[in-house]
This record gives sequence, C-alpha cells and structure tokens, in this order.
Amino acid sequence: MAAQKSAQQPAPNTTRRSERSRRAIYDAALALVGEVGYPRTTIEGIAARAGVGKQTIYRWWSSKADVLLEAFLDLSEQASREAGPEYEFAIPDTGDLAADLKAVLRLTVDQLKDPRFEVPARALAAEGVVNEELGRVCMTKLLEPSLLLYVDRVRAAQEAGQVRQEVDPRIALELWVSPLAQRWLQYTGPITYEYTDTLVDYALYGIAPHAR
Amino acid sequence: MAAQKSAQQPAPNTTRRSERSRRAIYDAALALVGEVGYPRTTIEGIAARAGVGKQTIYRWWSSKADVLLEAFLDLSEQASREAGPEYEFAIPDTGDLAADLKAVLRLTVDQLKDPRFEVPARALAAEGVVNEELGRVCMTKLLEPSLLLYVDRVRAAQEAGQVRQEVDPRIALELWVSPLAQRWLQYTGPITYEYTDTLVDYALYGIAPHAR
Repeated sequence: MAAQKSAQQPAPNTTRRSERSRRAIYDAALALVGEVGYPRTTIEGIAARAGVGKQTIYRWWSSKADVLLEAFLDLSEQASREAGPEYEFAIPDTGDLAADLKAVLRLTVDQLKDPRFEVPARALAAEGVVNEELGRVCMTKLLEPSLLLYVDRVRAAQEAGQVRQEVDPRIALELWVSPLAQRWLQYTGPITYEYTDTLVDYALYGIAPHAR
Repeated sequence: MAAQKSAQQPAPNTTRRSERSRRAIYDAALALVGEVGYPRTTIEGIAARAGVGKQTIYRWWSSKADVLLEAFLDLSEQASREAGPEYEFAIPDTGDLAADLKAVLRLTVDQLKDPRFEVPARALAAEGVVNEELGRVCMTKLLEPSLLLYVDRVRAAQEAGQVRQEVDPRIALELWVSPLAQRWLQYTGPITYEYTDTLVDYALYGIAPHAR
C-alpha cells in the first residue's frame, strides 16, 4: 500500500495544498456543527467556511457524516499524539492495570473538557441519540476503536493474572468508560480525576466486602 | 395537605374533565417531541394535538420543558405501578443486593425498549446533550430521583455489611446504571437481561481476582 501510494504521489506543491485544504475542511466542519448542530450543517456550508469549492469536498468524501467522522478521527489522533507516543495506538502497559487505566481516563477527562472537542462532539452525539444510523456509524468508526484498546489492555491483564479469566473485557471496560460518558452526556455529576480514579478502583475490586 | 386539597376540591365533573385534558396534553407532548424533536415542539402544537386551548396549558405549566418533564414523570410512575407496588417508590430489599439490582435493571431494559418511552425519551435526551440548561433540568427532575433510590438501596446494603463502608453509593450505582444508559444512548452494544445481570456481578465483586 505504501509503495503504491508513493508511486502515485503528486508533486510536493499539490500535496501541500491538498493538506491545507483538508485541514481547513476539518476545522470548518467541526466549527459549523458545533455552532448550528448536525441537521443544519451542509457540505455547502463547510465548503464556504473552509474557502474551498464544494467539488473539493465531494472529491474526498461522499457525505457530511463522512467529513465529520474523519474530522473527529483526526482530532483524536492529534490528542493522542499530544499525550505522548505511548498513547498513540494503545493503552500503556506498565504492568499495573489500575495505574494505566487511571492515566488514560485522566487524559479523557481533559479531552472531554477541551472546547475544541466538546462543542462539536456534543452536536454529533446529540444527533446520534435520535438518528440511529448516524449513532451506529459514530459507534463503529469513532467509539469502538478506542474501546478495543481497553479490550486489549484487559486481555493483557488477564494473561498476567490481574483480571479473572471469565470476565468479558468488552463489558468490563464499560464500568469505567460509561459512567464518565454518562456524566458528560447527561450531567449526572462532576467530571474530575478523583472520580475516574474511583471508578477504576470500584471496577477492579468491586463494592462488596473482599473475602478475608 | 390531603385535607386542604379536599376542601378546595372542585365539582367531580370539573375534576374529571381536567384529568382528561391533562392526560391528553401529556400524550400529545410525548408524541409530538418524538415526531418532530424538541426544538420544533411548541405549546401551540401540543395544544392543537391535545384538542385543548393554549391557555389550558399555560394555566398549569410555564413552558414546553415543564409539560414534557411532567409527562415523563407521569410515564415513569405508570411504568413503576405496572411493575408492582414494591417498585413504586423504592428498589426492593429482599436482603440479596445482587438479586434486587438485577430485578430492577431488567425492568429498566424493558422500559428502554418500550416505544411509548423510547421515542420521546430519545428526543429529550438528544436535546439535553447540546442544551446544558435542559440537560441539567432533566437530570434534576427525571434522572436524579431514580438514582437516589439506588443510593438508598446501596446504603441499606452497607448497613447490612454487603457493601464496603468506604464506598460512595452515588458513584457505585453508576457501575450498572451508566453502562446501560450508554448502550441506549450511543448503541455501544446490545441491551439484554444477561448483560445487566453481568454488570451487577462485576460491580459487586470487581474484575480482579478475589482474595483467597
């Protein structure tokens, strides 16, 4: 794939111009959806705001949902890069599951409160609640890939004997991901590092008394 | 309070007519918000659909948010009554915390999948994600009262020695409430009895190996 891409690579100036347009389109799409909501966001509106022709957008994407999904993926990749290389495609594995989960969740707390992310993400999430098709696409393309990083980390902990063998990692991760998501979506409580640390402790050790 | 209400009670025919109007207004408000969404729902639209004058609505409620919140409260009360008297203002306490939580969550699964509830509740929840004021009102008036029933049940379990003393009941309940909420809001996975049963087991006993 890389070789093929390289063979078809356009002249440097074209690439640079394309990259600039792509970035402008992402920025415009995120800003617009945050301001007017998903239903009133249009390809025309994104194009006008980005200073590109409508055809430039249609050359790369087939719908406004596509543009927005890629804009969010790009934003998440930026956030992961800023957090450090160890967070880029995985959840760190220092051998201490609780510490690793707490560290990642603290970064998520920061991201949820970052207005660059929060405003457009709320607009997309709101539409996903009433528009099942969009909701499922957001799940598949945006949420699931990050949930699978937790699945991998919990599996590694199972191999290390730190999580019970019979636990389903795909459900286990919801013990810390979902409470934070619901506080963000429905204002069910304050979002702090102390809170996400507590979730991890409860999820790992349960709320029932420990066997003696 | 009951005596005072009785002294002011209007003639039976008026009461019956008022009750019929109130019910028609709730039904109209829920149907309308499910069909056109929260922003396009209006007091005028609710009145027209319910076959009452706008003034009838304004006599009892000050805004469309008020009408909708009471319509949802009424719907929840109906669901609790249908589930049985032991669910009406509390979570049953049979002495077995896991069994009690599983029973209540199975009822919640049924409610989330009931179209009478699901369609309007999605419309309100979606608006709450992008409209912080409405989101916080929904939290205070609709969500928090049912969350507090879990707080009471977890406190009783703490007194019975079934939950550790240092656990915060308000956070603990999110281990089973929030994963279900997120699956409903964001399609993060199927909603089944087996799933909610599993959440309760993980929440109580944790995912880490038990002490031997």
